[in-house]
Amino acid sequence: MAEIGKNSVGIVQTQTARLVEAGQPLELECGESLAPIDVAYETYGELNGPADNAILICHALSGNAHVAGVNSPGDEKPGWWDMMVGPGKAIDTEKYFVICSNFLGGCSGTTGPSSVNPATDEPYCLDFPVITIADMVKVQKLLLDELGIKNLLAVLGGSIGGMQVLQWAIAYPDFVKAVIPIATTTHLGAQSIAFDAVGRDAILADANFADGQYHGKQGPDRGLAIARMIGHITYLSEQGMREKFGRELRSANEYSYEFNSEFAVETYLDHQGRTFVERFDANSYLYITKASDYFDLKKDFGTLTEAFVNVKSRFLIVSFASDWLYTPAQSGQMVDALIANRKDVSYCDIASPYGHDAFLLEPEALGSIISGFLEATHRPEVKSEKGKTKSKKRDVGGEIRDFEQARRPRVDYKLIESLIEPGSTVLDIGCGDGELLANLRADKNIKGEGIELQQEFVLACVNRGLPIIQHDVELGLENYADKSFDYVILSQTVQTVRNPEKVFRELLRVGKKVIVSFPNFAHWRCRVHLFFYGKAPVTKQLPFGWHDSPNIHFLSLKDFDGFCRELGVKVEKKIPLVKRHLRPIRFIPNLFAEQAVYVTSKK
Amino acid sequence: MAEIGKNSVGIVQTQTARLVEAGQPLELECGESLAPIDVAYETYGELNGPADNAILICHALSGNAHVAGVNSPGDEKPGWWDMMVGPGKAIDTEKYFVICSNFLGGCSGTTGPSSVNPATDEPYCLDFPVITIADMVKVQKLLLDELGIKNLLAVLGGSIGGMQVLQWAIAYPDFVKAVIPIATTTHLGAQSIAFDAVGRDAILADANFADGQYHGKQGPDRGLAIARMIGHITYLSEQGMREKFGRELRSANEYSYEFNSEFAVETYLDHQGRTFVERFDANSYLYITKASDYFDLKKDFGTLTEAFVNVKSRFLIVSFASDWLYTPAQSGQMVDALIANRKDVSYCDIASPYGHDAFLLEPEALGSIISGFLEATHRPEVKSEKGKTKSKKRDVGGEIRDFEQARRPRVDYKLIESLIEPGSTVLDIGCGDGELLANLRADKNIKGEGIELQQEFVLACVNRGLPIIQHDVELGLENYADKSFDYVILSQTVQTVRNPEKVFRELLRVGKKVIVSFPNFAHWRCRVHLFFYGKAPVTKQLPFGWHDSPNIHFLSLKDFDGFCRELGVKVEKKIPLVKRHLRPIRFIPNLFAEQAVYVTSKK
Repeated sequence: MAEIGKNSVGIVQTQTARLVEAGQPLELECGESLAPIDVAYETYGELNGPADNAILICHALSGNAHVAGVNSPGDEKPGWWDMMVGPGKAIDTEKYFVICSNFLGGCSGTTGPSSVNPATDEPYCLDFPVITIADMVKVQKLLLDELGIKNLLAVLGGSIGGMQVLQWAIAYPDFVKAVIPIATTTHLGAQSIAFDAVGRDAILADANFADGQYHGKQGPDRGLAIARMIGHITYLSEQGMREKFGRELRSANEYSYEFNSEFAVETYLDHQGRTFVERFDANSYLYITKASDYFDLKKDFGTLTEAFVNVKSRFLIVSFASDWLYTPAQSGQMVDALIANRKDVSYCDIASPYGHDAFLLEPEALGSIISGFLEATHRPEVKSEKGKTKSKKRDVGGEIRDFEQARRPRVDYKLIESLIEPGSTVLDIGCGDGELLANLRADKNIKGEGIELQQEFVLACVNRGLPIIQHDVELGLENYADKSFDYVILSQTVQTVRNPEKVFRELLRVGKKVIVSFPNFAHWRCRVHLFFYGKAPVTKQLPFGWHDSPNIHFLSLKDFDGFCRELGVKVEKKIPLVKRHLRPIRFIPNLFAEQAVYVTSKK
Repeated sequence: MAEIGKNSVGIVQTQTARLVEAGQPLELECGESLAPIDVAYETYGELNGPADNAILICHALSGNAHVAGVNSPGDEKPGWWDMMVGPGKAIDTEKYFVICSNFLGGCSGTTGPSSVNPATDEPYCLDFPVITIADMVKVQKLLLDELGIKNLLAVLGGSIGGMQVLQWAIAYPDFVKAVIPIATTTHLGAQSIAFDAVGRDAILADANFADGQYHGKQGPDRGLAIARMIGHITYLSEQGMREKFGRELRSANEYSYEFNSEFAVETYLDHQGRTFVERFDANSYLYITKASDYFDLKKDFGTLTEAFVNVKSRFLIVSFASDWLYTPAQSGQMVDALIANRKDVSYCDIASPYGHDAFLLEPEALGSIISGFLEATHRPEVKSEKGKTKSKKRDVGGEIRDFEQARRPRVDYKLIESLIEPGSTVLDIGCGDGELLANLRADKNIKGEGIELQQEFVLACVNRGLPIIQHDVELGLENYADKSFDYVILSQTVQTVRNPEKVFRELLRVGKKVIVSFPNFAHWRCRVHLFFYGKAPVTKQLPFGWHDSPNIHFLSLKDFDGFCRELGVKVEKKIPLVKRHLRPIRFIPNLFAEQAVYVTSKK
């Protein structure tokens, strides 16, 4: 067994359970009913004492129940997500009890169009009823009932698996503590439907398809291979394909002037098509792509917001920047709908060149955010403890040249903390690694959320168990309702955004109070710099030269006062600060304050 | 004839010419030879006296010689680019003599795989030799010879037509005054090759294909339709499809739970596939897509730069922002290669949601830039006359609140003009509508080029006959060689770029001298503002509030002096200016200058 990796779950057997008996058919969404239903599944790890560590993985179009490990000692191909699931891996089988089943309509052990129709004793083929994502999830729930699982720590999956994850959160809100929909969408757009449709056309057009009655004969292999090839192009990104294949020729240096596969990318797709045909059923391909085309939470519920009204799970939504099949923008729509419902949602758009397939190819980035989120959900007390946070604090007294540090000098954190009422709700814009929010949660029992652009900070916040949205605040906060938060914090950021007015107006709409802090450009040192030396000021609060500063606007307390007057904003508190003292200073603040903290609200 | 539009070329006949006789076959790039060769073509307008107004249009994959007008009184379908070609249209048939021919390998009158093979008296089918873009262009040249055309004002075309345009410029540098490659590429990337390959696979997999010998029988209609559907998805953009079709169902409101075409986008693609089959030959589809896959100027010449060494034409390269088949980045590579060769090249990336097909769907934007470029090429003296330019000058004395005006106040233009040696070469960064360059050309006989981000300014420059590249200077000037220009001008822009150091270094590399002008942040009014009032300065030179300024860096003469010292840059001239006077001021310039003009160079 040396050939099985050290962190492998080892040899596993796919098991099968009859979940629906012949006499008691399952009612499907299309109106038809189905029986019997068998389901193939695998499990890894052990259900713990409190039975609070079960995780369900939902697979995508071409996946199956075999997630991790190998099926026999000689088996050279581990499960499709082996890099993510195993002892010590992101989905740690030493901590969690992991279940995955082949979905309804599949062709890897679960009842589908190639199963025998009891009415005819022949394979169903196109007599199999058209199934939906909701039907698949219904059957998965039957499996969990059968296994005695009373609740799930998490459901996760990518692509069509992600659709099942969304359906789980909606259909069984009390059953699922957390969900992780990855590289998925609440509905296919016209382009994705088009690709699916052309793929199905290629199968239907194959002379060997024979209205689906190809069992025991030569099947529609070329049609299915073409469908797979089309799909495969959409799973990769233009960049990924360019870097992997470019215009490389398979073997020769010169063109063959023949119609064979001569570019490397052609050979690769040919191979993908050919090997797919060996392991997949053409009818299943029709049914599953149709199920994904039909999936449309907006249609089901009227609006996306309505779709998520009753969910109770924590959400971690993950997209990949180069995924053009189920795009980051589509993930953004889910995020918005969950925000509109004030749900516990985090969102990360992982930078990756691998397109849609990145959910199978980015084990590090994806693994660390999944494991952090699972642990913060499973053992929140461990992840949110304050000590960990404190140790990350940096010295702010010294010369600050580092961009990130200067962006958010922590000197005003203590003061901001003192301004916030215990038990209130707080949105921190540009929250960095979540230190302020974590402190506020520990000290003041607030309910905090963050918005942050940088991936590593998003990860840090997820690790702290903080709801965090990867988002550029300059794009607005459209889906946050008016007065969603008691406080919105914009610490040391107003001078770095392109459009401070737009941003500030949004914050004032979303927060009952907005706390803004910024460096005072009219501090006497700055004035002296410009007045006597005729130079752009470089001070400890404004530590950058004119040409390398992240600060793209310069303002003083007076400027901000005027700004608030212009916008009709009420200044509730105005606290000029010198860095050394955390007490406000009172003498000519616009001259002596190095920075200022304002508490403002709409009049 | 009331049904024919007023600006139509009217009724035209497609003509056919035998260009290669049976006895004198044409040598093809693949090594085989071909005879006879007939070519179908149409012409519009008249060749003028000097015979300098002939324009060749090259068509794309599914096009043909019938560009404009109708073929009979009852004909309801005008030519494929009728909106662009006609009296008074962008390609004005009252000014120009326009020619278009069906390309070699096509199926609309020119010799191709469905033509009769004289060796067998049967259609060639797959015995037709594999042809290339270069072969197509060779045959087009034969047609022009036959028509007695000695030179072309321009060759233009989109997509595969654009490849022919590029080939024209390279193969016949002395024959072509100007070329306009639109939405095209010097080589297909892996993703585009993949789509072509899958399309061909669909044809080859069709049982009716019969190794191409389908003439007189049922052809591979379903395979060809699938190829066309795949192609069609790539011609549109995701946004375009979303906006046009969304998830609309063809007729019903509810899902059919059947495998028919029920989404509107499916029905649309079905229709595209079906109608294509009626007018196109499957073998031609194989040959033409293969020719486009093979097209690779880099492979032919070693590097793209080498490919364009000998071209003499003016270039106007046009891409469309949402084109993901032949991307703006690919157009950018051509632009770079032409710049590296110091050729006369203009580039415009037209904002459009229509994807690759925008070259057929954006008659206004595309038409105005094409007509401007054609006219500036045909009658340069008319387009570059100075009076026109002057009338566009705006009042710079009044209160400037307009972003664009403030970006480039013209007060320093006169001074900059006075600094430039007659007959020199000049690159103007952020050149706006090209006023400064046009004046320099008229007054000092300089050879000028511009870089500009905004589409309307690019158009204005093309209209003036100025080479203009649509480009963000913050991305660098990689493909401009060291010391390419006597002068590089950066007027009133250094304070608005994110990374002034990077930009300035690039300019110093590319220009022997760099002329920089900027507003002086240490003018006494600014100092007083900050020192006494404690507010961010708002003056005529810095007319914006702290929060709505396009100026994201603030610098004084002293700051810029220090910057030059830091970078080891030689300040050859330093001219502090007060706006009222165009003479430099000498008394404490950093205090009294409202703006400054520097002439700098690398030490």
